[in-house]
Amino acid sequence: MNTAELAELGQQLRVDSVRASAAAGSGHPTSSMSAADLVAVLLAHHLRYDFERPEHPANDRFVLSKGHATPLLYAAYKAAGAIEDGELLTFRKLGSRLEGHPTPRRLPWVETATGSLGQGLPVGVGIALAGKRLERTGYRVWVLCGDSELAEGSVWEAAEHAGHEHLDNLIAIVDVNRLGQRGPTRHGHDLDAYARRFQAFGWHTVEIDGHDVDKIDRAYGEALSTAGQPVVILARTLKGKGVAAVEDLEGHHGKPLPDAEEAVAELGGPRRLHVRVHEPPAAAALRDLTTEVLQLPRYDKGDEVATRDAFGAALTALGSARGDVVALDGEVGDSTRTEEFAKAHPDRFFECYIAEQQLVAAAVGMAVRGWLPYASTFAAFLTRAHDFVRMASISGSGINLVGSHAGVAIGQDGPSQMGLEDLAMFRSVYGSTVLYPCDANQTARLVAAMAGLDGIRYLRTSRGKTPVIYGPDEEFPVGGSKTLRSSEEDRLTVVAAGVTVPEALAAADRLAADGIPVRVIDLYSVKPADAETLQRAAEETGCLLTVEDHRAEGGVGDAVAEAFADGRPVPRLVRLAVRTMPGSAAPDEQLHAAGIDAVGIAAAARLLVEEAVVR
Amino acid sequence: MNTAELAELGQQLRVDSVRASAAAGSGHPTSSMSAADLVAVLLAHHLRYDFERPEHPANDRFVLSKGHATPLLYAAYKAAGAIEDGELLTFRKLGSRLEGHPTPRRLPWVETATGSLGQGLPVGVGIALAGKRLERTGYRVWVLCGDSELAEGSVWEAAEHAGHEHLDNLIAIVDVNRLGQRGPTRHGHDLDAYARRFQAFGWHTVEIDGHDVDKIDRAYGEALSTAGQPVVILARTLKGKGVAAVEDLEGHHGKPLPDAEEAVAELGGPRRLHVRVHEPPAAAALRDLTTEVLQLPRYDKGDEVATRDAFGAALTALGSARGDVVALDGEVGDSTRTEEFAKAHPDRFFECYIAEQQLVAAAVGMAVRGWLPYASTFAAFLTRAHDFVRMASISGSGINLVGSHAGVAIGQDGPSQMGLEDLAMFRSVYGSTVLYPCDANQTARLVAAMAGLDGIRYLRTSRGKTPVIYGPDEEFPVGGSKTLRSSEEDRLTVVAAGVTVPEALAAADRLAADGIPVRVIDLYSVKPADAETLQRAAEETGCLLTVEDHRAEGGVGDAVAEAFADGRPVPRLVRLAVRTMPGSAAPDEQLHAAGIDAVGIAAAARLLVEEAVVR
Repeated sequence: MNTAELAELGQQLRVDSVRASAAAGSGHPTSSMSAADLVAVLLAHHLRYDFERPEHPANDRFVLSKGHATPLLYAAYKAAGAIEDGELLTFRKLGSRLEGHPTPRRLPWVETATGSLGQGLPVGVGIALAGKRLERTGYRVWVLCGDSELAEGSVWEAAEHAGHEHLDNLIAIVDVNRLGQRGPTRHGHDLDAYARRFQAFGWHTVEIDGHDVDKIDRAYGEALSTAGQPVVILARTLKGKGVAAVEDLEGHHGKPLPDAEEAVAELGGPRRLHVRVHEPPAAAALRDLTTEVLQLPRYDKGDEVATRDAFGAALTALGSARGDVVALDGEVGDSTRTEEFAKAHPDRFFECYIAEQQLVAAAVGMAVRGWLPYASTFAAFLTRAHDFVRMASISGSGINLVGSHAGVAIGQDGPSQMGLEDLAMFRSVYGSTVLYPCDANQTARLVAAMAGLDGIRYLRTSRGKTPVIYGPDEEFPVGGSKTLRSSEEDRLTVVAAGVTVPEALAAADRLAADGIPVRVIDLYSVKPADAETLQRAAEETGCLLTVEDHRAEGGVGDAVAEAFADGRPVPRLVRLAVRTMPGSAAPDEQLHAAGIDAVGIAAAARLLVEEAVVR
Repeated sequence: MNTAELAELGQQLRVDSVRASAAAGSGHPTSSMSAADLVAVLLAHHLRYDFERPEHPANDRFVLSKGHATPLLYAAYKAAGAIEDGELLTFRKLGSRLEGHPTPRRLPWVETATGSLGQGLPVGVGIALAGKRLERTGYRVWVLCGDSELAEGSVWEAAEHAGHEHLDNLIAIVDVNRLGQRGPTRHGHDLDAYARRFQAFGWHTVEIDGHDVDKIDRAYGEALSTAGQPVVILARTLKGKGVAAVEDLEGHHGKPLPDAEEAVAELGGPRRLHVRVHEPPAAAALRDLTTEVLQLPRYDKGDEVATRDAFGAALTALGSARGDVVALDGEVGDSTRTEEFAKAHPDRFFECYIAEQQLVAAAVGMAVRGWLPYASTFAAFLTRAHDFVRMASISGSGINLVGSHAGVAIGQDGPSQMGLEDLAMFRSVYGSTVLYPCDANQTARLVAAMAGLDGIRYLRTSRGKTPVIYGPDEEFPVGGSKTLRSSEEDRLTVVAAGVTVPEALAAADRLAADGIPVRVIDLYSVKPADAETLQRAAEETGCLLTVEDHRAEGGVGDAVAEAFADGRPVPRLVRLAVRTMPGSAAPDEQLHAAGIDAVGIAAAARLLVEEAVVR
């Protein structure tokens, strides 16, 4: 396309953005209009993408980090022939796949869900990393960012990661339209301010007028010929460009234009340009990456092994059996034990340093490309990435997250290092699976089982050693549980998971010695929970006592309560959990102080059984 | 102190770090030893602090952002005469206030809990902001950072915030010891790499040898004489400095030295130096900031008002009545309605742009200084700050967080903007209060009530208008509820909150018309929940049906289940919640699709009542 045609295409994208938003009665046309020329030139001249084959291994990847600019994205899909005009006008309506913010679950050309700002670039870094270090099919990753979102720290985690990894297949385009939602950004049109920041993080920067299609064209060319560095194109643009009633004015964010018809006329009316997007180069599809039969580590009953150790060993074994497994570390691989994987499979190990948002985003990016990521750090610090996990669930992303050092059982380090809210966080995530093993063989099995699940999968591991209570051939289906003590005379059921399982067993032994038989259930699958077994235990023993190294809200206790959410009566349900703010102390002192050790469990059980007698 | 004395003090801090960690059998002596000279010079020459009066308004503030370096912090306390040697050796033991990571709940000289890296500087920015813009007593804020934690995006949110606000009362000291937990950092001893980054964000940088006490002294002097910019001192140090067995070597993070006795000898043995820390200048204590009687907005029954509007108006009124109220915005003040506060009280309004971690950290910093912060953004985006909220609860920080645009009820914008996990997140936080009003008068009252609570307080507001159902003089005690429909014949109780309250009322009316009386409870206080009323409703009606615009896990349903956690039987408890992934649609379509509108509630209630008959 020549200059005039490119400019026309930009106008068409504006017109269609205005029309789609007007039809919806909501949306972000002004944020689309500022970036229209940037997208027009990309689509017409530089993107290599087969819309018929979104899975093509050499397709370029495009991420709309400013996820609210969907009118522009969908207008571009229309220009590329991927959707019809009729569908464009279903924007934001019930049942339409053209949602307010893009979601890959419904649209095959969307790489990752965006709309929480500052997430597209971090995920783009993950995709680019996969392209550069694992796939090498030559695809480029284009990320369209807003200027407002550069205030998010996650953008600078991404900038640091990309700069350090020399990701010259990554091109960020920043639509510097000067205006955020409620007013001007910190830096307005000061492109240099952004350039200094990106340069400091090792990026090549290009500053342009974002409405000059020739300069845009040359900037993309410069980006593609830059080696050894990621590139950011900082484009000076005007929000609402092309329509005087809104152009460069405050107060028009996230609204249809005041008069859409007039605006379309001012933009020169509708056009019917169709863009032939460049084909990607030929590339082989991903090879079969299964290399050998999975040989999980095996532990002997009675040994003492930390579940984090079993995780490290199992992940390493999984990595040997499956070439698509990748591991990501938040600079604590010696603690989480991913360092074992790093030694065995250095080419598939990614050090993300202390940047948990980027850790999860990189995992999401790799999952986009079909890899099977296991990202791990301390359970406590995964809270840092909560919003990324939330967005990953909207994407339908299949990632494995492993949080170590769960609970007060870590001991002396104190509350800042204790994951006490992680079960609540992960249970509330849509479509998630939450696993909490108590011994090494169980851990190994669950690490392998995670690989075959959909959605967000979370595994919680522990710092200290726990006794191996299961044999290496025992199976642990997700959604199941293990009943470890049971008799017809059971007067109560203790439901434990992780570090509280051995405590529950010790308590049961004490109680049994005193003539109080109690059932013990190991609820290693916290979500989904084994409702049937819990319901039967409630019926047969009349009382459930949950015990967890976690806050009382959102964890095992709530999971057990939910097993009765079909409306059946719950006989009695009492929860032991961490109800105070711990300090520093030895692990056994911590469990005791929280009342979740064998002594605490036995005392609570005794009280409940006696109460039952009185009643 | 002269050069030799300062060096001696540094050695004493090392010796005491080694001794404390050896006594504990754990801890981070090597991370303390690298920064010992930096702290020695600060303590002896530059810090202005009255350890007898930690509340002194002109005291400098010291934040240990690398929170694991507590051996050094406590050794400094000892050198300053604040604690005795005997107490130093209780480090990390049960009952000791010298925890593995510092907590202000127990130690009066600690400003904020640290230990989750990358949080000290953001909170320090909040403290410095309060000093610069609100208090003007001339205190300086010193933040000791590690180099590893500079990978956290939150550090760059803080750097941006401080640079933009020209916080020349803020001095960051980075202990560039080259080694993280599991190995070298990205940039090793490349001080320039860090300097470029900080300069890009508008900071003055000073690079020094962090073991040369004279250079440290001069660097602090340079920092104090720098106007208009925050200053970062980048100090090249050696981890484990002074003990050959560990100095600058990998594999010694977070462990006592291999031979403490030998190490102490190598460091020249114990010393008994005592530092007279400079007194702060005289300053008046905070004046009484109550200016007038609180006049909350009043709404007429039957009007339609969004709770976010009522929040904005109530916060503005509270700001008029109390001069200690400050508001912080994440660049969505037009949506959350804090813009009303901004107009009325511009001097106490803080724009934090799209940086939710910094938003919460700044609030924590202001609370440290006795201000009463209300920080708000979309409920969905508060998940971004989960780890900051977690750490704030460890600090015992009294902050108010307000999340708008909760639930599917926002409509067309789609799932990325819908807060659907916020109740779960905030309920799991230790000592938190979680409020979810359904009408404007209730909102106004709760906004005022939050001010008087301890710990983390969360208020959830809604985007769309809801009918005003309460009069302006109705009271809403925290921990209470409102029973809106009740009779002796009630066959079921609907427990609703927020947007589902009007839906529940409409459902109750339909059911009543069909001869099925049901009770309706407005559970505006989700945590603490009104257990007594819920228990009575369960006894009297036999069945509870919870309905919430939130995921099924961790929200209202779980809160209601917890009201029976004392072991009493729960007759029947069924939950309506958002169980699928929403797309774009109108608000009423969303509520309907999720099955939480009047139709869905009535249908579920009918089913449950009929089931009860069958049984």
